Amino acid sequence: MSKPLILICNDDGITAPGIRALIQAVRDLGDCVVVAPDRPQSGMGHAITIGHPLRVQAQHGLFGDLPAYQTSGTPVDCVKLAVDQILHRKPDLLLSGINHGSNASINVIYSGTMSAAVEGGIEGIPSVGFSLCDYALEADFGLSADVARTVAKAVLERGLMPGTLLNVNIPKIDPSQFRGLRVSRQAAAKWKENFEERHDPHGKAYYWMTGEFELLEQAEDTDEWALRNGYASVVPVQFDLTAHRALLSLQGWGMQDWNIENGI
Amino acid sequence: MSKPLILICNDDGITAPGIRALIQAVRDLGDCVVVAPDRPQSGMGHAITIGHPLRVQAQHGLFGDLPAYQTSGTPVDCVKLAVDQILHRKPDLLLSGINHGSNASINVIYSGTMSAAVEGGIEGIPSVGFSLCDYALEADFGLSADVARTVAKAVLERGLMPGTLLNVNIPKIDPSQFRGLRVSRQAAAKWKENFEERHDPHGKAYYWMTGEFELLEQAEDTDEWALRNGYASVVPVQFDLTAHRALLSLQGWGMQDWNIENGI
Repeated sequence: MSKPLILICNDDGITAPGIRALIQAVRDLGDCVVVAPDRPQSGMGHAITIGHPLRVQAQHGLFGDLPAYQTSGTPVDCVKLAVDQILHRKPDLLLSGINHGSNASINVIYSGTMSAAVEGGIEGIPSVGFSLCDYALEADFGLSADVARTVAKAVLERGLMPGTLLNVNIPKIDPSQFRGLRVSRQAAAKWKENFEERHDPHGKAYYWMTGEFELLEQAEDTDEWALRNGYASVVPVQFDLTAHRALLSLQGWGMQDWNIENGI
Repeated sequence: MSKPLILICNDDGITAPGIRALIQAVRDLGDCVVVAPDRPQSGMGHAITIGHPLRVQAQHGLFGDLPAYQTSGTPVDCVKLAVDQILHRKPDLLLSGINHGSNASINVIYSGTMSAAVEGGIEGIPSVGFSLCDYALEADFGLSADVARTVAKAVLERGLMPGTLLNVNIPKIDPSQFRGLRVSRQAAAKWKENFEERHDPHGKAYYWMTGEFELLEQAEDTDEWALRNGYASVVPVQFDLTAHRALLSLQGWGMQDWNIENGI
């Protein structure tokens, strides 16, 4: 039986400690290929590169004998380049991360790490994004690596429901306090922005985005609850963004009968 | 009664014909403020700017007497800057577009136009993104403008279900053939990438992303069906990405009992 082909990517860039930890954790589970951005791309969401061409550079020395490539593109570009231009086939598994910082709750939508996994899902690849709730470059990825290996093995064995992927977040916690994995839903939350205004040496204003995370619910079936209570959260994610629960109410607006020319 | 405050943004940049058409269509419905990127930002998805500071420049002459600002940020940055730094309050309505090109089906996830509307939704603002299925700069926005005005009036009057926003796409069609609005769900589809390899004057390879849209279903309740049959599609969109239908199946994996240290 041939070994599964595993595509590994991230958004913190190919030199980030988190992707190295992920590779170490899973490299014997299949034939691993690394395709990652050549620089940090946090917060890139599902951006793709349309107006510029992309570069791809082999970096085969970086991870022992693993084929590795850095690209000038976004995390989503990396997945597209990997499938169409580097692997010339769909990998059997896509693993993204390990991200330096939480991608739980609403963060999933801003995250390049998770967008790479979403793109894998769109391509029909069983895909998982991993994130450690610790932004430090020197964060300890030990527990996260163990979680990543366990989840990767399970997904290789069982597959995922079509149209879905996994968002796995690992708490910043002493491993002795770790309570295990917990299937969860995305907690309702938002960032409350607070731009910091500064002035450049020429007197012109510029703004740094800062913000505070606002958790909008405390329910025990959410990823935020899991992480705050010693669990790693496992959220199934989908890319059908239709708010199905709103369809009926909208149909009640009678739009089909509106006269567009004169408004309502 | 004070007039509603309407925030207008887009992803094609503040000088795009599409945003001008949108402004003309809705400017008498409230107090409009324009905050848009200073250059095209198509395909930016839900990207935000973390590693660089942002610039904001008043452009009050662009649209008659309307306050207008261009920013160096992404469409999502524009919404955040508008709420926190420019308006200092939540607008009553956010309108994004009119995009030059379709944001129906899977395009919703790559679209800066729609991500601005999604960000509005996250902030609790009734939000709508409008897109015309015509990529031409000189596209005719007449019908789209009429649709935008009609939908904007309805949303001002009725509001939207919390946690949802609208993705409105208008077909490229002679207005005499237009059949009206149709509430729809996001059609299953993907882009099949095909990178075009070229070489720079120094002999080094670079890649242009090209692709073909692959529609994966023909159902009549989808946005693609509506657009291909003379309707403008209206899809309610949500930013809870949890694949709720997959929760039960994942719970059946027994993850809570896995021994992480030794894998499964």
